[in-house]
Amino acid sequence: MLEPSPQAFVPFVSVENMMRLVHQIGVETALKELADYIEADFRRWELFDKTPRLASHSRDGVIELMPTSDGEVYGFKYVNGHPKNTREGLQTVTALGLLAEVATGYPVLFTEMTLLTALRTAATSAMVARHLAPKGTRTMALIGNGAQAEFQAMAMRAICGIEAVRLYDIDPAATRKAHRNLAPLGLEVTSCRTAEEAIEGAGIITTCTADKQYATILTDNMIGAGVHINAIGGDCPGKTEIHPDILCRADVFVEYPPQTRIEGDIQQMPADFPVVEMWEVITGKAKGRVSDRQLTLFDGVGFAIEDFSALRYVRDRLVGTDCAELLDMIADPDDPRDLFGMLQRARAA
Amino acid sequence: MLEPSPQAFVPFVSVENMMRLVHQIGVETALKELADYIEADFRRWELFDKTPRLASHSRDGVIELMPTSDGEVYGFKYVNGHPKNTREGLQTVTALGLLAEVATGYPVLFTEMTLLTALRTAATSAMVARHLAPKGTRTMALIGNGAQAEFQAMAMRAICGIEAVRLYDIDPAATRKAHRNLAPLGLEVTSCRTAEEAIEGAGIITTCTADKQYATILTDNMIGAGVHINAIGGDCPGKTEIHPDILCRADVFVEYPPQTRIEGDIQQMPADFPVVEMWEVITGKAKGRVSDRQLTLFDGVGFAIEDFSALRYVRDRLVGTDCAELLDMIADPDDPRDLFGMLQRARAA
Repeated sequence: MLEPSPQAFVPFVSVENMMRLVHQIGVETALKELADYIEADFRRWELFDKTPRLASHSRDGVIELMPTSDGEVYGFKYVNGHPKNTREGLQTVTALGLLAEVATGYPVLFTEMTLLTALRTAATSAMVARHLAPKGTRTMALIGNGAQAEFQAMAMRAICGIEAVRLYDIDPAATRKAHRNLAPLGLEVTSCRTAEEAIEGAGIITTCTADKQYATILTDNMIGAGVHINAIGGDCPGKTEIHPDILCRADVFVEYPPQTRIEGDIQQMPADFPVVEMWEVITGKAKGRVSDRQLTLFDGVGFAIEDFSALRYVRDRLVGTDCAELLDMIADPDDPRDLFGMLQRARAA
Repeated sequence: MLEPSPQAFVPFVSVENMMRLVHQIGVETALKELADYIEADFRRWELFDKTPRLASHSRDGVIELMPTSDGEVYGFKYVNGHPKNTREGLQTVTALGLLAEVATGYPVLFTEMTLLTALRTAATSAMVARHLAPKGTRTMALIGNGAQAEFQAMAMRAICGIEAVRLYDIDPAATRKAHRNLAPLGLEVTSCRTAEEAIEGAGIITTCTADKQYATILTDNMIGAGVHINAIGGDCPGKTEIHPDILCRADVFVEYPPQTRIEGDIQQMPADFPVVEMWEVITGKAKGRVSDRQLTLFDGVGFAIEDFSALRYVRDRLVGTDCAELLDMIADPDDPRDLFGMLQRARAA
């Protein structure tokens, strides 16, 4: 028999199908459910096989492989980061992901992850803010209005009850784009001319600027007490956003310290700079926000377990939909030792 | 505009299309050309970004990521190794590979690599044997008649001029399968009852057994002078085939010593056991075979650069064929910062 066996086929989610899947679920519901999957995996943090990502640096960017496993399922993401890509009309970040069974090594899902990474990054920020932001926060500032901006706003709305967003970017065209996209979605949107103006009255301040440099988006005198800073743009060596004085004043929360100390805003601080791991806050091992006056800061860089959660979520949510196509990816002859015979029979066919 | 841009599409080679491509080229021509691509990359060995593979071990097997880059192109392979899979009718090894542009991080090829790995493993063995086997060798022994066996025989025929193959496996059914596949292809095939019988008169002795254990397929008294041993089955920690006494007598050649000392047959030897790197033989920096009486041994474990060569080969050979389909893998909005707008417009469409 020359038909490939069922094991030969792996479900693949294209960009188009990912968009269809997200719309079938609803963007806000998808963000909420994703945040729950991520939080569930943070709860069982100790169980995961954790390695820093494997990065290949070049003049213009980086290509990374981010694997992890919970012992049952193995996942990895391929992702690049090339800041100058936008000048050529290309995405700064593109990504692909794969999920496989640990017991057999056979892939069970292959998917686009450019969109999925945007969703999981926003869901992670909002899941963290649900634990750390001051109670009753209804206004957020969004500094940096690039590809991640609207996802952040929608996740904070869906998960933390944000009603108003104050936008600022050094490029007014980026702010106009974010304003145009967000205004029809029921958020009260204000475009601002300075970062100072944007943070007025905001209980959550998100920084997600894109330039690969040591930038100072927020300085100490700008930040009062009782806010939560969601600092996600400083995410690789040589790329930071937050002035060290703010880091010294704040309680700093991170995903995986060995990675964040290299890639996050705390790369500016000594190796023993105190941080709290988010999984410990979520499981109750460590304290999160303890007072209304406290300044909390999430130094988010993106960790493999969040991609793993996102891949699990897509696998589960695909059931009963037509949002995947089957790819003939695995050579699977009837007699597993007869790979060459399978090749020869294909010629005859 | 709602059509994905050309950058959104990545050529994908399915198992079926890989088989079609190989047959359009011809199995022996493909093996020869692949060996030339691999040899070309061994010649520029020093230029590559080399890291040991990133392995995730579990009770029943291992899942690995094998990346490398020549500065222009980046490639990686996903590959598993689960010896007990065959008992459930599954492949021991399945693999997938991706090639991307270093300058942008955009993928340019995604392909099945189960078949391609079988081809590149055999092409590497034969390329090495072309440098090391005694001149005029026309007979090879093939000990271990699993999924890799026939590929080895065909590559040795195409690249080294082998005319006769002597088969042995502890499982006679495996030998029958290899005999049946090879006999129609113009090789003189002899099935043997013992390993001793198989190596009679053979100038090249290939060991490619599959069990994950410290096995001794070849012992010292079996091996005379003036042969080349192609030892490729001992390729992960705890899996060896060759008695240490043979390793002591032989000149041992390897791909990448840091990996081979962990995974190869030389894992049985001290950390300073002398080995010669194949790329040095190929570039003339080191000597290969220097006499007819010499015993040479290639302790092959498979290295990322060989997969890189194979991916380059497939990319080049796809040109002008219909052996790839285009997958909508990369989210690529017209304005790269407008990822969210692209998602919203997809709902409207």
